[in-house]
Parts: sequence; structure tokens; C-alpha cells
Amino acid sequence: MPLTKAEIARLRSLQDKKHREALGLFVVEGDKVVGELLAAKYPFTEIYATAAWPGPRPAGTREISTEEMSRVSHYSTPASVLAVGKISRPPLAPGALDRGFTLALDGIQDPGNVGTLLRLADWFALDRVLLSPDCADLFSRKVINASMGSFARVAVHTAPLAEALAGVKVRVLGCALDGDDVHQLPPLRDAVIVVGSEGRGISDAVKKLVTRHVTIPRYGAAESLNAAVAAAIVCDNLRRVSRT
Amino acid sequence: MPLTKAEIARLRSLQDKKHREALGLFVVEGDKVVGELLAAKYPFTEIYATAAWPGPRPAGTREISTEEMSRVSHYSTPASVLAVGKISRPPLAPGALDRGFTLALDGIQDPGNVGTLLRLADWFALDRVLLSPDCADLFSRKVINASMGSFARVAVHTAPLAEALAGVKVRVLGCALDGDDVHQLPPLRDAVIVVGSEGRGISDAVKKLVTRHVTIPRYGAAESLNAAVAAAIVCDNLRRVSRT
Repeated sequence: MPLTKAEIARLRSLQDKKHREALGLFVVEGDKVVGELLAAKYPFTEIYATAAWPGPRPAGTREISTEEMSRVSHYSTPASVLAVGKISRPPLAPGALDRGFTLALDGIQDPGNVGTLLRLADWFALDRVLLSPDCADLFSRKVINASMGSFARVAVHTAPLAEALAGVKVRVLGCALDGDDVHQLPPLRDAVIVVGSEGRGISDAVKKLVTRHVTIPRYGAAESLNAAVAAAIVCDNLRRVSRT
Repeated sequence: MPLTKAEIARLRSLQDKKHREALGLFVVEGDKVVGELLAAKYPFTEIYATAAWPGPRPAGTREISTEEMSRVSHYSTPASVLAVGKISRPPLAPGALDRGFTLALDGIQDPGNVGTLLRLADWFALDRVLLSPDCADLFSRKVINASMGSFARVAVHTAPLAEALAGVKVRVLGCALDGDDVHQLPPLRDAVIVVGSEGRGISDAVKKLVTRHVTIPRYGAAESLNAAVAAAIVCDNLRRVSRT
């Protein structure tokens, strides 16, 4: 059965954050990202595929023509598969940040950076990622694509950081340019690692809650490191010194 | 004196790699990137600025109108300054790779990644970056912008990697998923660090020249790390264990 005009309009509308929020749905497109998320058992609610899609069809996959795909696609070169999922924003349970490792992103607006940070949180098995509300939209395709499937595996919460971090009992490490040497970190079993935005660093309200600023030793002249690069180095050192 | 039609066409043409190569020139645009490169004493051959440009004018800066800038600009929202530099590709001196640290990029095609890698090579004071010919174009604005000024400070060479690495006397470390623990690296004063492309890793011909594959310990489920993130962690560990 061909897609109705209303179905096509609905799928296309999910390009815009406003419509995603109104419908509570997001969309990803392409063999690679859909395959990665299916491999991670992500519970899509709808899947649309053309005959060209090589992936095994989960139950409920709807076959559509390439002409239909070109009408619903968000890309100028349409992919062979498009999948829809439900936007979900699990609340942060009280005291949750006191257990395990949390990566807190303070105003990271570049979607590629947010996706790369989800991916490294997955690599280092951090317990959760906490996004400030002004970070790039977690449900945008650029974030999800850059996460390389980690979007499906990492627990992500969105909350105003200063409120969420007030009263945490574990150390709050802040990536900074004038802190303690990251190579000298003590072994830790629980911690929050805060990464600030590229432009303005960690916001003042959050900075007050940081219990230890950590710095990656610099040998050359670059003024700073990319936010994801800095976070990755801190996580690698934290895991290295905390090995049991 | 207003810009001639020919001058406008010439500046606009530098958006395309083909024209950049034909003229031996590249262009960067925007207060931020031009300011970063001027701060690093980059020898631009031409600078065009509108009255809105806050930067101090180097000798020879040509004042143009915002209407002229909108005609030469590469952006839909024109910046207040645009600068032109000479493309230069210094040859790799024989034996150069045997001294100090070299970061070799094998087919990194994402320009943002190449720029981020230049930035971290600058941070860690690596002696040079070596690009395989199929990397993103060093003189594209995306690479230069992402380097945050490091473009002006890092020595970059382009060469077929398998040829350039044949016969090097120092260790050639390859970032891999099945190598030795990067935390166990020995102290080194000279080394080549090879990073492969996201899609296919290090190419076969180069892999044969790697003397030691190194791996970042993984705790979670992500299949890999972003190329710049992986290179950064290897550089941080190399500097950590090689401190004197």
C-alpha cells in the first residue's frame, strides 16, 4: 500500500526539532546508522525500506518504493532505509550521580562533538551522560549518526547542570586549562567529569560545583583541545589509574 | 578603489580545490580564523577587510565595502575579513621521520577530523604531521578552521605513506583495535604514530610497516573511537611515559 500524503508529510516534518518534539518522535536514515542501532537492539517504532536495503527486515518493516523514499528522505541522496523512534527523556533519579561515572556536557552545541562524546562514554563504559539543556539536540540525526550506535547503549539524561550537580557526594572533575595534572588523578570508583563548551568553557554556576579542575599537560602552542578529545584523555587516565 | 570583476571572480574561484591548485592559493574567511592565523604570524599575501573588522590592519590590508565582501565571500553570511595565502607543500627531507614525533594520517577524509588532528599535534608539540594524498585537502577552509590556528604552527607534509615510512629507523606505532595496551608504552624520544581512516583503518601497505600496534583499553561496547580521539589518547600516553 503506498504511503499517503499525510504519512509522507509526517515523516518529512521530523527534520525539524519543533515537529519532533510535538510528535515525540525522531528519525534516522541510512543503512549504516539504522544497522548500528538495530544491532544494539534499539526499539524503533517504524521502519521504511526500499528493495535496495540489504539488512534483514525486522517484523513490521514497511517496504516502500524508491520514489516514495525520495519523498520522505531528509537527504538529497535518499538512503534505502529510514527508521522512526520515540523520544524519551528518562528523569535523573535522586542520588543517581553518586554512583559510577557520569560525563556531564555543559553547553556543547556542535552535534558531531556530542555524538563523539556519546561514543567515548560507551567505549569507557561510563554509567551515564548528562546534557545541559543548551547542548545540541540528542535526537537530531547529526548527533545520532556521529555516535555510531552508542546512542542506543548510553544512558543519557538532560537537566540543568548546576541543579543536578548541587549536593552530589562524589568528586566533580572539570576539564580546564589551569587545573591539576590529569596524569596525577587518584583512583576513583565514582565521579562526575564536566566538559565545557568550546567557546566559553564551563559555565560559572557549574564551575562553583567542580571539586577538582584537571588539565592535560601541554607541550606546544595550541590554545586548547577539542572538547571530545579532552574528555577522552581524562576518561582514559581515570580508567588507567582506577584499574583494580 | 573598488574590486574589479576579475578580482572578484578570482577570489570566489578559490572555493574550489581545482582553482586553488591552479593558482597556488587558498583562502580563509572570518574574524576568528584570520585572527588566529595572524596571531601565529601566518604570512598572508592578501587581506580584504570591511569597516566592521575589529582586528588591527596589517600593512597592505585592502578595505572593501560590505557589498564587495558579499560578492567575494564563500559564505551565505559574509564575514568582515578574508585572507589569501600561498599553498606550500614542503618536501620531506630524507631521514626527517627518524627525528622526533610524527603523526601520520592514513586516508582521513573528514576535514574536521584533519583539523582537530593538527590541533592536537600542536598541543603535544609533535614535530610534524604527514598526510597521505587521500586525506582531506589541507588547504580547504574546513580543515583550517577546525585546526584553530594550529595550521600555522604545525609542519605538515603530504606523501604516499608506504613510501615515506619504508626504511624509517624509529618505531612506527599504529592505532589499532587488537594491539598492545597503550598504557604500557615504553618511553620514546622518536616515533611515528599512524592513524587510519574511520572506515577502513590503516591501509595494508602501511600496516606492514607498523612495528607495534597499540590499543586503548575498552570497557564498554563501542566498536571504535573517533580517529582524532584515538590519536589524542596515544599522544597523551606517549608524552606521559616519555617525560624526563
